[in-house]
Amino acid sequence: MYQAMSSLGLASESPFKGRPKLSPAPPGTSVLILGAGIAGMVAAYELQAAGYKVQILEYNARPGGRNWTLRGGDAYTELGGFHQQCQFDDGQYVNPGPWRLPYHHHGILHYCKVLRVALEPFVQVNHNAYLHGEKAFGGKPQRYRHIAADYRGHVAELLAQCAQQRRLDDKVSGEDRERLLESLREWGALDAQNRYVAGKLSSNRRGYERDPGGGLSARPQPSVPLSLDDVLDSGLWAMLTAGDNYEMQTTLLQPVGGMGRIGEAFAHALGPIIRYRAKVVDIHQDEHAVHVTCEDASRPGSTFTAQADWCVNTIPLSILSQIPMNVGQPMADAIAAVPYAAAVKIGLQFKRRFWEEDEHIYGGISYTDLPITNISYPSYGFHGRKGVLLGAYMFGLNAMEFTAMPPDQRVRLAVEYGSRIHPQYAREFENGISVAWHRSPFTMGCFGLWSEASRTAHYDDLCQIDGRIVLAGEHASYIPAWQEGAVTSAIDAITRLHQRIISPGAAA
Amino acid sequence: MYQAMSSLGLASESPFKGRPKLSPAPPGTSVLILGAGIAGMVAAYELQAAGYKVQILEYNARPGGRNWTLRGGDAYTELGGFHQQCQFDDGQYVNPGPWRLPYHHHGILHYCKVLRVALEPFVQVNHNAYLHGEKAFGGKPQRYRHIAADYRGHVAELLAQCAQQRRLDDKVSGEDRERLLESLREWGALDAQNRYVAGKLSSNRRGYERDPGGGLSARPQPSVPLSLDDVLDSGLWAMLTAGDNYEMQTTLLQPVGGMGRIGEAFAHALGPIIRYRAKVVDIHQDEHAVHVTCEDASRPGSTFTAQADWCVNTIPLSILSQIPMNVGQPMADAIAAVPYAAAVKIGLQFKRRFWEEDEHIYGGISYTDLPITNISYPSYGFHGRKGVLLGAYMFGLNAMEFTAMPPDQRVRLAVEYGSRIHPQYAREFENGISVAWHRSPFTMGCFGLWSEASRTAHYDDLCQIDGRIVLAGEHASYIPAWQEGAVTSAIDAITRLHQRIISPGAAA
Repeated sequence: MYQAMSSLGLASESPFKGRPKLSPAPPGTSVLILGAGIAGMVAAYELQAAGYKVQILEYNARPGGRNWTLRGGDAYTELGGFHQQCQFDDGQYVNPGPWRLPYHHHGILHYCKVLRVALEPFVQVNHNAYLHGEKAFGGKPQRYRHIAADYRGHVAELLAQCAQQRRLDDKVSGEDRERLLESLREWGALDAQNRYVAGKLSSNRRGYERDPGGGLSARPQPSVPLSLDDVLDSGLWAMLTAGDNYEMQTTLLQPVGGMGRIGEAFAHALGPIIRYRAKVVDIHQDEHAVHVTCEDASRPGSTFTAQADWCVNTIPLSILSQIPMNVGQPMADAIAAVPYAAAVKIGLQFKRRFWEEDEHIYGGISYTDLPITNISYPSYGFHGRKGVLLGAYMFGLNAMEFTAMPPDQRVRLAVEYGSRIHPQYAREFENGISVAWHRSPFTMGCFGLWSEASRTAHYDDLCQIDGRIVLAGEHASYIPAWQEGAVTSAIDAITRLHQRIISPGAAA
Repeated sequence: MYQAMSSLGLASESPFKGRPKLSPAPPGTSVLILGAGIAGMVAAYELQAAGYKVQILEYNARPGGRNWTLRGGDAYTELGGFHQQCQFDDGQYVNPGPWRLPYHHHGILHYCKVLRVALEPFVQVNHNAYLHGEKAFGGKPQRYRHIAADYRGHVAELLAQCAQQRRLDDKVSGEDRERLLESLREWGALDAQNRYVAGKLSSNRRGYERDPGGGLSARPQPSVPLSLDDVLDSGLWAMLTAGDNYEMQTTLLQPVGGMGRIGEAFAHALGPIIRYRAKVVDIHQDEHAVHVTCEDASRPGSTFTAQADWCVNTIPLSILSQIPMNVGQPMADAIAAVPYAAAVKIGLQFKRRFWEEDEHIYGGISYTDLPITNISYPSYGFHGRKGVLLGAYMFGLNAMEFTAMPPDQRVRLAVEYGSRIHPQYAREFENGISVAWHRSPFTMGCFGLWSEASRTAHYDDLCQIDGRIVLAGEHASYIPAWQEGAVTSAIDAITRLHQRIISPGAAA
């Protein structure tokens, strides 16, 4: 059926073609997998299904890697020794890593289906959430719907007037001109004179001054649009488009109960082949096997070794570049060529869901030019007693600055900044937790930050099989930071590795 | 806190100010409520809380009225005798009436909270769903994201070129001109030369020809935008804006398990005060009381009477206009002045969720110019084995035509039309059920269809208290068809009625 759809042109081409169809593994062939993140567990799941003898070595005491949900009772110690204990109530959580599943990430969605990880919609755009700039509208947050409707309305009016005044005749003429005008009226909520003005049409987009109701004295009062000048000056238009981007368009999904459900489901399916608290300190391959030396993190000072015929190595390059491994110069250069992006996420628990109760914000994201960048409201548990906000999600310099602070200071600042958007913060805040990815002992960064130049120079070398070792992970993909990169990278890597194993004579 | 927010200008004014604060009812005062729909049950809930003796008479054997969910095992008999048995599997349902809760419908959302009706997001806009016109693109459905991104991109390009060529200088100049150009590039995904062309920027909105993936040979291939001419010719731009409208903007919500959960929760909270199967045939008021005569629909031919000091009458005007009731001429004229909108909904169960499996459509709505108007995909139960689509939601002439058909023919036609968008229909269809609202014995129509003229002439007369009787329902509101109209109408009506009861001397 998928074939039929594709030939009808209804399906765009995806790099995920379903689970890999590997022929049976040569009896007794073993593969050692480094890292129980999404890439490592996908590789293990499929290699095991093909009959390989698989073992995974994982640094953390839990599966998932960056696929991770922090819940009440969880503890987390950063590089530098900062220790945090998550104090969220039952049912509350924050996802320090990935938190959204785009509809076109067919690979990770497929494994959610296979592993029966329940999904629910993730609300990205909320027309009632805020856009906020310190210098925009005197620092007063604006509802998304006001900026979105007014920017579009003014743009439509300007273009419609140009068309009407025959200034577009060299570009659009005749029937197209009439159709353009008709479409701009519909699209921009313009009146019959092609104007974007206060009235029923514009209020039907931006909302009313007084909403319609029932009975007597319930007549609606239209609202008054912002001027084009004010919208342009505010700069808030730059925050309108997040949900238009391919990776954040509807329908976005999330696992019920937190993103970590995927990693947990993989680990459950894989059974006892994952060895936790195994810190890889040396990787050595020879003609016959790959030998890996680990420190046992639960017994400091003690080491053990593991070996197998082949190795799928999903250790982030930020860590891998510090581990001795005898691969060729091209792969070694590639491993050293990719810096890791800085990112910080902060989860804040509040005594009540004031954003729902006072402000009628159900899920979605408010954007701000404050260092916290955004405030994300939970897309689940509506009308519950308490709630956890993603109180900050920072990249770049802001993230670096927050990474340098101790966790309690990060949380304090997130509350301080957030209270400029939600004054209720001060009174309702209970507790918080933060993850600064450059201090994460298992990744030392958030994701591989490829440039056009580094990708041209090194990407293919990174992905080639080197002897008995192949790398996989989001860093070995064209979708940095997304789990789909890890899934498709793992499938590509093991498919080529399997081919190499069963046809050793074939070309690389 | 809400007061504080309002004074900050953060909350727009809503007609719902929280549950009405009624002073204690005069001891022994009774109110008869006609109809156990949302309006009737809100009235009962609040009057009971104030100490009134309340009874509800309801025609159906269930609560909710148009708040209604059809599930497997449910039966439904239309006017004309058409009988349908819902054959959906467990967990599948269709909402024949309301199916969406806007975030700004504070009243109905408040009762969901009070009654602990669990809510989840309803996906309205899905960038991967279709827009379809019989004559557009040879009848081939287009992904929403293609039409949305390309229409916007071309509009932005046209306006940016006008600005660049100084054709806008009389409207936008100086700094604003530069800001406009910058904003159009961001908003329309234009390149540095203000062009909307094939490449990474436009693909980041409309999707790729080949999506990015992991490993080798996973390089993304950009897609090629449609021309402005093709987009304008298609007419599909007219289907872009549903989700921009105030009533269908994000965040939309729905009760977990079907809209009928609200009516069921109200009935549970109200206890045994609802008498079902009571068909009102006469309403008579005198100086002391209101007397209502009913046929007991479970024992044909038998009648009974009920009486109370006062009456809140929520019977739809389409029915009420046929029931003798001694009210003054103004209210009588108003009752007769409002025709009811025609609407048909058809639910279709399929053996598998091909829209998810083959086409990666998770929730949302496809729009078409075929008579079925739209196909709506469930926003819940993703990756489940079976699924129910809303296979048609028709108004006006299309609805009239389908209302004239027997239910099995409606379903057959919905499958036939739908298969032009989803060829899988033919093979995967299992069973269906339809509700043609003009054949509904309890409403004989979908909702009160006010015109500007009829509202000016009659609306206030409809809402005035007439002796001991006050009307309520969506028909007595400025939000026709929406449950919020019923809620706010009921609160407005009982607040005034209560005032009349405790201050009988006060003016009407």
